[in-house]
Amino acid sequence: MRIVVLAGGIGGARFLRGLKAAEPQADITVVGNTGDDIHLFGLKVCPDLDTVMYTLGEGINEEQGWGRRDETWSIRAEMAEYGVEPTWFGLGDRDYATHIVRTQMMSAGYPLSAVTEALCARWQPGVRLIPMSDDRVETHVVVDTAELGEDAEHPGVRRAIHFQEYWVKHRASVTAHAIVPVGIEEAKPAPGVLAAIAEADVILFPPSNPVVSIGTILGVPGIRDALVEASAPVVGLSPIVGGAPVRGMADKVLEAVGVETSAVAVAKHYGPGLLDGWLVDATDADAVAPVEEAGIRCRAIPLMMTDVEATAAMARAALDMAAEVRAAGEAGA
Amino acid sequence: MRIVVLAGGIGGARFLRGLKAAEPQADITVVGNTGDDIHLFGLKVCPDLDTVMYTLGEGINEEQGWGRRDETWSIRAEMAEYGVEPTWFGLGDRDYATHIVRTQMMSAGYPLSAVTEALCARWQPGVRLIPMSDDRVETHVVVDTAELGEDAEHPGVRRAIHFQEYWVKHRASVTAHAIVPVGIEEAKPAPGVLAAIAEADVILFPPSNPVVSIGTILGVPGIRDALVEASAPVVGLSPIVGGAPVRGMADKVLEAVGVETSAVAVAKHYGPGLLDGWLVDATDADAVAPVEEAGIRCRAIPLMMTDVEATAAMARAALDMAAEVRAAGEAGA
Repeated sequence: MRIVVLAGGIGGARFLRGLKAAEPQADITVVGNTGDDIHLFGLKVCPDLDTVMYTLGEGINEEQGWGRRDETWSIRAEMAEYGVEPTWFGLGDRDYATHIVRTQMMSAGYPLSAVTEALCARWQPGVRLIPMSDDRVETHVVVDTAELGEDAEHPGVRRAIHFQEYWVKHRASVTAHAIVPVGIEEAKPAPGVLAAIAEADVILFPPSNPVVSIGTILGVPGIRDALVEASAPVVGLSPIVGGAPVRGMADKVLEAVGVETSAVAVAKHYGPGLLDGWLVDATDADAVAPVEEAGIRCRAIPLMMTDVEATAAMARAALDMAAEVRAAGEAGA
Repeated sequence: MRIVVLAGGIGGARFLRGLKAAEPQADITVVGNTGDDIHLFGLKVCPDLDTVMYTLGEGINEEQGWGRRDETWSIRAEMAEYGVEPTWFGLGDRDYATHIVRTQMMSAGYPLSAVTEALCARWQPGVRLIPMSDDRVETHVVVDTAELGEDAEHPGVRRAIHFQEYWVKHRASVTAHAIVPVGIEEAKPAPGVLAAIAEADVILFPPSNPVVSIGTILGVPGIRDALVEASAPVVGLSPIVGGAPVRGMADKVLEAVGVETSAVAVAKHYGPGLLDGWLVDATDADAVAPVEEAGIRCRAIPLMMTDVEATAAMARAALDMAAEVRAAGEAGA
């Protein structure tokens, strides 16, 4: 079974671990979000790709969900001594090694997809991990400068800050007026992305952030169209449970794009042209009817990724729903 | 008192510590060798500048003589896991931070001298540390490929390897046929170097490697001439004691440039046009007469930098000799 998964960081990575447990023989291609990439200290950092790679390669810090296990923090201490900014992004020494290797390879001319493949040769994630694009896309967030504590004498002035500054430094505590994936109009899907989508048996959206993770991937010209045209069913899992994100601060960025923080609203935001099936949490059973009315097959099941087994059950439910969609399509054809 | 010191790595750094102890009020400018600089993993590494900076800034690993105290080695372990070469150059995590900051600043357009000044703002070495040049100079060593274990079927084939590969990887165990400071013809002295030499009261050559440390600095067009023309006495300390280098493998590179490994030969190699005074070790008392016959004032004193006090005594002896040279010059004038 060929499965394509669009993935952000922690949520996507944990879902993938469950999917691998549920379908060990599956041929899984992961299209990874690169909109949260950032250049720090002259190094190219790809948090979502690395979270997937480290998680599936057994190198992740399980408690944090990001970064490396057995990490040391000497460089961070040194950067503080040198007075070099920023200090709010947590890069451990082992993690730095990945960014140094990546940056060196990219400086030598290799595209991000080739670099990612080379890094995965070590990590053996058991999936084919492809960045959504080899072109640079970095998500920015438009905020009020007054909320940043800047320029208080000119209320109403706004500027764009990098997504990581918004997310990590400010913990999404300032109002996001717009989410701008800078560079996305000119970005092309990385080699292999469109072919994997076209050849897939199943396409899954894990419970990742619908705006800055899945949404960014969908924004790369050609990817949404390929998903709509794909013969494979597209099934998603709601990241919103009981009107709030399971983890992270997705509500803040949903508000910025004018979408209510609910399992129903996110399904409708993706749209029935894109989604064939949608899994909501058991506590959101009342979401099933409105989602189905919108033309998307829906079911309520436990959606908490508390451990690999619970996550595998979610993955199995998503694959079962995809099979149902396919059977219904064949019956209807 | 304005003192200019030409310095390599460990020997130069330790001598400088003694000099500062001997003359705490002196205004010391250090012209640092950059011929052993190397680009590793896309980062600009300046081993000699850093050894001086870390040693005088109390950050050095005292046992090794290079690198940082309280160092961690996570990145080195990661590089081995990624299979990234080279593995023979020891870069610790704290040391990496320096190279990352330096590389980022240089990528932003700052010359090495400005970057060094910025790094020293943290380390407060108590001297003004200037690289010999802002232009890239990297010393290469011509060796037989057969001795490297390469191309055994074609004896007599030679190629140039980076000095660090020769020095650190091969421990100077392969025959050096030539020492080639690549880029030196086009290099200009860094801002401040010539002025410091012209305005100096005393110029000192520590017991550093006469070929690949002091010799490289002297090879930058303009520096040797400035030293010859300077009004200040130039006094050196022999790195050769009893016919062997005190530390390091200076004998190997002296052989490559056709100079005998002796305190006398090194003094003559620098030349009486350059050197006004030369200190040899007490065990080399028989070197005094031939050096003086060559027109260079000479004295035999203990030259082992066993601790700061012993080193300070060496520095005092060098300053005393400079005073004698100056007095003799004034008497003769």
